Amino acid sequence: MTDTAAIGCDWGTSSLRAYRLGVDGALLERREAARGIMTIDDGAFEAAFEEALGDWLDRAESVPVILSGMIGSRQGWREAPYLACPADVADLASALLALDLARGRRIWIAPGLSHRDSGGTPDVMRGEEVQILGALEGLGDAPALVCLPGTHSKWARVEDGRVLGFATHMTGEVFEAVRDHTILGRMIDAAAWDDAAFLAGIERSGEPGGLLGQLFGVRAKGLFGELDEKTAGAYLSGLTIGHECRAALAGGEAAEIALIGAGRLVGLYAKALEHLGHATRTLPSDVAAIGQWRLAQALVAKPDL
Amino acid sequence: MTDTAAIGCDWGTSSLRAYRLGVDGALLERREAARGIMTIDDGAFEAAFEEALGDWLDRAESVPVILSGMIGSRQGWREAPYLACPADVADLASALLALDLARGRRIWIAPGLSHRDSGGTPDVMRGEEVQILGALEGLGDAPALVCLPGTHSKWARVEDGRVLGFATHMTGEVFEAVRDHTILGRMIDAAAWDDAAFLAGIERSGEPGGLLGQLFGVRAKGLFGELDEKTAGAYLSGLTIGHECRAALAGGEAAEIALIGAGRLVGLYAKALEHLGHATRTLPSDVAAIGQWRLAQALVAKPDL
Repeated sequence: MTDTAAIGCDWGTSSLRAYRLGVDGALLERREAARGIMTIDDGAFEAAFEEALGDWLDRAESVPVILSGMIGSRQGWREAPYLACPADVADLASALLALDLARGRRIWIAPGLSHRDSGGTPDVMRGEEVQILGALEGLGDAPALVCLPGTHSKWARVEDGRVLGFATHMTGEVFEAVRDHTILGRMIDAAAWDDAAFLAGIERSGEPGGLLGQLFGVRAKGLFGELDEKTAGAYLSGLTIGHECRAALAGGEAAEIALIGAGRLVGLYAKALEHLGHATRTLPSDVAAIGQWRLAQALVAKPDL
Repeated sequence: MTDTAAIGCDWGTSSLRAYRLGVDGALLERREAARGIMTIDDGAFEAAFEEALGDWLDRAESVPVILSGMIGSRQGWREAPYLACPADVADLASALLALDLARGRRIWIAPGLSHRDSGGTPDVMRGEEVQILGALEGLGDAPALVCLPGTHSKWARVEDGRVLGFATHMTGEVFEAVRDHTILGRMIDAAAWDDAAFLAGIERSGEPGGLLGQLFGVRAKGLFGELDEKTAGAYLSGLTIGHECRAALAGGEAAEIALIGAGRLVGLYAKALEHLGHATRTLPSDVAAIGQWRLAQALVAKPDL
């Protein structure tokens, strides 16, 4: 354990993921527990944290400890106010919130990011900003997009090491609400999939008519035998992901698109973006560890923090 | 009863509305029953029809009887195939489906309309086409739009007495699915209303970002105290109705916009369209009776039918 140089902890709503990092940020050990902040009763965050990572703290006494995610929300351990974009690693490090443990150790909670679009409407993220910070290590200085697909997908515009701004799309949640709670659900076998129908939905999302009109097209195509229960769900997925991607890409040119995440959903976004003519590369969710390492380095470089 | 010249019956999913019409189509008597096709067991449509209107049939033996609505669907009494747009009153009259009652009387079921947009995606309506036929009586020959707000709103482009095409928007159903089955529901008092928030949602719908992105803005505005439970529902309503109206209006110039329906929802559409710079006039749902009268006249003029 003498080689531990930093500890990172991505503590979200449903799970806690921790990284023991070595010199140069190498990942030495990874832990994951189903101890998201929604599972913590009576604000007993410190007890849960000690239970999850107390042994790491015992054996690496003076290294920086960086927490990120919903643990810094109003419903978390302590609220770390949102930092407004644009922001780079130094800005985020300066906004780290100090928290002193009963054992006499100081740890740090990363702030979320906020952004207002050109019309003044606000947006927020909490946790994703540290993953984006990790992804920025591998991106050049040219304008790029970082996309984190999910229930609430995040699209960040980055350039020259900074997060310029971002937008959240409720795609995953709206897809499920429409599939499970509208007339379209009756014609969808949720377990079925069809790649051609997915791509047809992506294509359709670029036509006139708007999403609300195109959704009824799923029903009408069913009546005319052009979709069935094996294909309608994939078409609906393509329709919604297509609308999201087109809106996100309309924000400006991007030299690269980095996707962060794992599994089927990220694969669908890669397929959708490729269909729209954009190459992507995919980074794992654990890229958060790199972001935490960068924050830890910034802390160490500024001992006054 | 000697003055009955036609009988119309708008028989939908949840209710049956019947009109006894006099010479020149004057409305002599109106009946409404909660006997929609979903309430009819074992296909007992004829018994239900006789129960509802048998006395009218007894006393007006030789007048045309026109049924419209879901009664002509696959789930109804007898399926009247969709007629493809463009279509005028003569086309619809030629496609009336004859149905012979046990009492030895012939009645007629109106077909629905179908349409394929420029991308080839199909759309359908059943029942609304007869309301539109009624509305056409009062519209000029210039291009106009007829909008029937609802769970599935219909927008028809009409010109010179013909329905050129139409689009259905799932706005009402998606609004409810999002309000009742996503994270946004927690911040919405469904009973509250705020006109300024509704108009702010309409405005927002014209900005970049897409509907899926703008939906998350409802949540973020809540976090920043810019929406609360009294205003968030109206803003969400403005957002979705705004997206629908903008997509529908993008289809081409319209000299007039006629709204068909009653109550609060039609008032919201009138307000939204006015905010977008379009004057509207509102016609009652019973305009269906005028459409049925026009079909009845076309029948009488063509005794070979």
